[in-house]
Amino acid sequence: MDAKNVNRTSLKRLSNYKNVLYKLKALGFVKVFSDNLGDAIGVSAAQVRSDLSKFGITSGNKKGGYSIDELLDNVKETLGKDEIQKVIVVGCGKMGNAIMNYSGFPVEGMRIVAGFDTNPTMVSSNERIPIYCLDEMERIVSEEKVRVAIMTVPESAAAQVFDLVQRAGIKGVLNFAPLQLRSTETCLVNNINIALELESMFYMVKYSLTRPLS
Amino acid sequence: MDAKNVNRTSLKRLSNYKNVLYKLKALGFVKVFSDNLGDAIGVSAAQVRSDLSKFGITSGNKKGGYSIDELLDNVKETLGKDEIQKVIVVGCGKMGNAIMNYSGFPVEGMRIVAGFDTNPTMVSSNERIPIYCLDEMERIVSEEKVRVAIMTVPESAAAQVFDLVQRAGIKGVLNFAPLQLRSTETCLVNNINIALELESMFYMVKYSLTRPLS
Repeated sequence: MDAKNVNRTSLKRLSNYKNVLYKLKALGFVKVFSDNLGDAIGVSAAQVRSDLSKFGITSGNKKGGYSIDELLDNVKETLGKDEIQKVIVVGCGKMGNAIMNYSGFPVEGMRIVAGFDTNPTMVSSNERIPIYCLDEMERIVSEEKVRVAIMTVPESAAAQVFDLVQRAGIKGVLNFAPLQLRSTETCLVNNINIALELESMFYMVKYSLTRPLS
Repeated sequence: MDAKNVNRTSLKRLSNYKNVLYKLKALGFVKVFSDNLGDAIGVSAAQVRSDLSKFGITSGNKKGGYSIDELLDNVKETLGKDEIQKVIVVGCGKMGNAIMNYSGFPVEGMRIVAGFDTNPTMVSSNERIPIYCLDEMERIVSEEKVRVAIMTVPESAAAQVFDLVQRAGIKGVLNFAPLQLRSTETCLVNNINIALELESMFYMVKYSLTRPLS
């Protein structure tokens, strides 16, 4: 598999398959068919097989289905779930706090290890996750070997905080600040701009589109 | 322009251009070149021109640039900014609250008119936005002529709340619940799953990709 030839949509579907597999496993299932996986996330069985083979996952066959355990191992390995994936949250205002308390993270693997804020004593934190001052970021990131950060700072602070985050050694940022940040040579950025997402939705509703834009 | 042939990426760029145009206008600028717009959001000038012409916006030329006022009017009309865009937030927990207090919404046009929760008296609301019981949704949506909702409910409530939202007459949903909802014939869904976005980021960092996946 060439990781560069993977697109974001099929990568997200792979994460989705993984979540479905966990649920099926919890129900005691041992085998699953591509039709089932497709039904669960709303795509065709052919799409499921094409996605899996794109990631080099070829265990299982049309007739006998996939072994859930085996498929789960393969998907987890592809997604990097063999290691624990640590995240920091930079900016512990309402949005940062909501993310630190978000219940949608998978139970295993992914873990928010620290929050950072200009004024950590003012933050009403949940007790599970320690909150530090921004200037401790480099130390914590290095000690905890963190590579990914979620940025939830105000627009006015975003550019400056992005510098800090990169200097601390972070390689990937999920940015919720309304300022569009650009990936650098050492740090990838995925901007999640809620206002832009809403605007797209208004557009689709205005023109009565019957399916989401690709 | 055929609204269906527009893709999500160019639509988001259009929103981005609009934001840049507002900022330039605030600085007293009258004209702008496609190079400037491109630089501001990190794409080529040719991309800017192609995006604008895709949306049927052809005012302006390579040599003289675009009139900011005229371009802004065109972009706003395309995005449906001639009308006020009302939104409701369904689920007023930490995430819903963070969104109701989000500072990244554009000053004009977009407005959160109400929040809904199973237990509105328990919610610590900001005072600008009234919070109602779920069973008042149909009335408010109809009175306020709201067509778009943001769903920030727990995974366990998502499917049921999605039914309610549709019955209330909502045509587009931005879903933050970790349950992947599917668009129906009458209601479009855009799922924003923070865990999946993080997982994509881990993947990209793991394989040291140097630019975001398309």
